[in-house]
Amino acid sequence: MSQKLPDITKNLPEWYQEIIYQAELADQSPVRGCIVIRPYGNDIWESIKGILDKKIKDSGHKNAIFPLLIPESFFKKEAQHVEGFAPELAIVTHAGGKLLAEPLVVRPTSETMVHYMFAQWIRSWRDLPLKINQWANVVRWEMRPRAFLRTTEFFWQEGHTAHATHQEASDEALLMLGHYKDLAENYLAIPVITGRKSEGEKFPGADITYTFEGFMPDAKALQMGTSHMLSQSFAHAFEMKFQDKEGKVAYPFLTSWGATTRLVGALVMTHGDNKGLVLPPKIAPIQIVIVPIYKTEEDKALVMAVAEKIKAQLPELRVLIDTDDQKTPGNKFYHWELRGVPVRIEIGPRDLANNQVTVADRLGIAKTQVLVDEVASYTKEQLISIQKTMFYKALDRQKAQMVRKETLEDIVAVKETNMVTTGFCGARACEAVLKQHTLSIRCLLDETTFGTCFNCDTKNASDCIVARSY
Amino acid sequence: MSQKLPDITKNLPEWYQEIIYQAELADQSPVRGCIVIRPYGNDIWESIKGILDKKIKDSGHKNAIFPLLIPESFFKKEAQHVEGFAPELAIVTHAGGKLLAEPLVVRPTSETMVHYMFAQWIRSWRDLPLKINQWANVVRWEMRPRAFLRTTEFFWQEGHTAHATHQEASDEALLMLGHYKDLAENYLAIPVITGRKSEGEKFPGADITYTFEGFMPDAKALQMGTSHMLSQSFAHAFEMKFQDKEGKVAYPFLTSWGATTRLVGALVMTHGDNKGLVLPPKIAPIQIVIVPIYKTEEDKALVMAVAEKIKAQLPELRVLIDTDDQKTPGNKFYHWELRGVPVRIEIGPRDLANNQVTVADRLGIAKTQVLVDEVASYTKEQLISIQKTMFYKALDRQKAQMVRKETLEDIVAVKETNMVTTGFCGARACEAVLKQHTLSIRCLLDETTFGTCFNCDTKNASDCIVARSY
Repeated sequence: MSQKLPDITKNLPEWYQEIIYQAELADQSPVRGCIVIRPYGNDIWESIKGILDKKIKDSGHKNAIFPLLIPESFFKKEAQHVEGFAPELAIVTHAGGKLLAEPLVVRPTSETMVHYMFAQWIRSWRDLPLKINQWANVVRWEMRPRAFLRTTEFFWQEGHTAHATHQEASDEALLMLGHYKDLAENYLAIPVITGRKSEGEKFPGADITYTFEGFMPDAKALQMGTSHMLSQSFAHAFEMKFQDKEGKVAYPFLTSWGATTRLVGALVMTHGDNKGLVLPPKIAPIQIVIVPIYKTEEDKALVMAVAEKIKAQLPELRVLIDTDDQKTPGNKFYHWELRGVPVRIEIGPRDLANNQVTVADRLGIAKTQVLVDEVASYTKEQLISIQKTMFYKALDRQKAQMVRKETLEDIVAVKETNMVTTGFCGARACEAVLKQHTLSIRCLLDETTFGTCFNCDTKNASDCIVARSY
Repeated sequence: MSQKLPDITKNLPEWYQEIIYQAELADQSPVRGCIVIRPYGNDIWESIKGILDKKIKDSGHKNAIFPLLIPESFFKKEAQHVEGFAPELAIVTHAGGKLLAEPLVVRPTSETMVHYMFAQWIRSWRDLPLKINQWANVVRWEMRPRAFLRTTEFFWQEGHTAHATHQEASDEALLMLGHYKDLAENYLAIPVITGRKSEGEKFPGADITYTFEGFMPDAKALQMGTSHMLSQSFAHAFEMKFQDKEGKVAYPFLTSWGATTRLVGALVMTHGDNKGLVLPPKIAPIQIVIVPIYKTEEDKALVMAVAEKIKAQLPELRVLIDTDDQKTPGNKFYHWELRGVPVRIEIGPRDLANNQVTVADRLGIAKTQVLVDEVASYTKEQLISIQKTMFYKALDRQKAQMVRKETLEDIVAVKETNMVTTGFCGARACEAVLKQHTLSIRCLLDETTFGTCFNCDTKNASDCIVARSY
């Protein structure tokens, strides 16, 4: 059996590191900042991918695959873009036994490559909108790696679209932000706040970056993904032009948007407890684990028959019967609690004598005897209820942590325990002050309830959220 | 409309290059040897992935993700492995703005990384078998790239397993070979021949490499994938040890196996004709295209209602109604024939007056009037029949191309039009002679019908297949 987990309420970072390892979500790799995503972690990622891929396709996007390696000169075409990414790039200088004439960058994101290709494909307004998505690995050299949350190589989808009008592109960026919010709240059970990024935090080369921010139990914000209104800067940089309906040459308006394996980290941190992972039913690779309990071969036959029968009644759910004869039922309870399986069904001869089984939920709300004939419908309802409960539990916590403060001093005073809403004038100078306190503006809100900036006397400030972050 | 395709019977390579582009399967990228896989090509790859992923999971393997970048020193641990791959490697020398202390290789395959991790995970016989698969991109610097068939970056699954006994590992390598054969024949409709690779062709570091070979219309072989019995060489190189049931320290027996985006190229080349792609129904991203034909708004309403009704009757199939008002029906026929859609349903007012629609198949076998009420069951049968017909058509061709020859001279004489079965002693010297004639041993067969080697006097030679190859 594994070592006891650190107390999550006292030391979230250590708990996080340890649960990632103990639940076999990931392992350190021999390459700085890179992890190996183990099968259980990958199953969670595949759950998330499946849901998001369907949303992307159902909203009219098509998947494609662009090259991993990008000519270094492409990055230099968009001035802000190269400035933002240059310090993080991994560079291939040699290949096929020779020094390359031009170094190749291992993509940190694919705007430059995609836009180069878009410029070949887009000729007329009939080619628009062009709505492409790619599931890919990207590399950004990382100085302070943390499994899933911040790794040198990570995995994501990156959407890239081109539109005839500013309005259409803007609608697209917001549409995808909405899909992300739905994914986070209704599948991952993580309440998020959406809004624009400040000038200091937006994507290098974007006009507007929209973000969906989660807030962890330690009151740190986690940027869970972004959707960018790129406008026309990249179109100009890559000479992407089209003939509009009136026959005039025009530049398309672009968007890009991405969500990453970081979502797995968000899931772990948002819902975990001192027993380990707690996974929302819609994402859990195993939704129900059945633990057969027996001592004699006769009991085993009886118990296994009922286990198989219950599993057969739930074909649409992910049900595992744990038949490992090397482990005691107690070991199995521990094993699957650590791995966050939402519902456990215990089947033993004593319960079966009353035609019952015992059903326990991972939230620790109820451990109940349920009639064998009712267990299928009971657990189906229970999974729906667990999904909801997890979301509202996280939302209640988030609401309790979010406080209103008007001055920098007051913000700093609560930064270890709270996220803060405050007023912000929009100036980079005021934003820069926050960095000195390891704080940042997480997103700008479409409200103006404060009136004055937290750092200067400017009136007509917008509301924003300030917090420490991952 | 696109340019006319080159004649496939006269110039397969040009036809291939042109259809890849015209059917929008892929496009050249600005990086040498790399392609962009466009949505239609990616849809085909996703079809293949879905089928293969299910086979892999159903046979007890789990997906995981290993790092893209591998320390250069890892490659040097297995002598044959580094010798085989060194000329093809792309090397990251700089990252995060600095020269790296140790260069990192962009993985050409992941044995070294996976085995390093296996050595951490495997301690006892209880940890075996360990059966892992990864869907990934790999990079091998390519001097003569050809879309899908041979590209610098390509996409694949690579399976890696560890077993307690030689027998188990051997069974695993053959099990996966069987799955690949099933994928090729029963889904891609491509007949393949399976067998072992010769010493000159096997995977660097493997004891035995099994291959499944397809044979193209120009009588060139295409290695469609391989399954390797690695035995213990890598286990020794990475000090992967376990305690066996008797408490003794032992080295596990390893396998690896992979299939790539090359399968898309095999599909295109095997089945295509002068009208373009011909896709087997089980793989086709669109299985049935419905082309509505109308001139008046009244007819349009009538025709579209029937189109929607038929589509609704086929929820389990991939059906597209082509509603593009910019194109004539003739343009649409051309467009979807080029893209290989197996079945086309034409719905027009004249047929509808008789409560009929017209159904055509991509093989050009039948164009028939079918009653509206019967079209769903008719096309379902038709798709099954097309799938079979495509396989047997390809098999007949392969059989006609495969001839028996006893001497090198006779083999060389037919090499432009035939694959050859012949006898082979197993010596690298005899194998090397073939290279001078741009021929190679594609696989060794478990038969001995020739008795003598094609190149020397050695008796007890095994049968093998010799051909030119992609």
